Amino acid sequence: MNTSTYTVTGMTCSHCVSSVTEEISELPGVSNVDVELGSGAVTVTSDTELDTGTVRAAVEEAGYALAGN
Amino acid sequence: MNTSTYTVTGMTCSHCVSSVTEEISELPGVSNVDVELGSGAVTVTSDTELDTGTVRAAVEEAGYALAGN
Repeated sequence: MNTSTYTVTGMTCSHCVSSVTEEISELPGVSNVDVELGSGAVTVTSDTELDTGTVRAAVEEAGYALAGN
Repeated sequence: MNTSTYTVTGMTCSHCVSSVTEEISELPGVSNVDVELGSGAVTVTSDTELDTGTVRAAVEEAGYALAGN
């Protein structure tokens, strides 16, 4: 089991949180997604370590962005 | 045909706009709802003049508020 925390920018309300949660939850192996609206912190629990590019793509699919490189 | 404009507070993103649009669109006689996210202006076209309390209830059902009394 692996837990990683990412920072997502652009979320402004609970609908945004739902969109990000839904997209990341659909990734293979993901068992839990916890999003803090205020900080943008997104903690993902998965079977194995996720590729950051995969998480980034899910976040962008929801209409938001991963902070940092 | 009647057109009225209201100001809705608390909308922060396009999801909020969708929620407000959906709730007001469900009111009897409403044929069009136009929401401007930036200003909060919501323009409603309806068969007959709407009761403000009815519009307020729809906006609050969506999770937002009508500005003013």
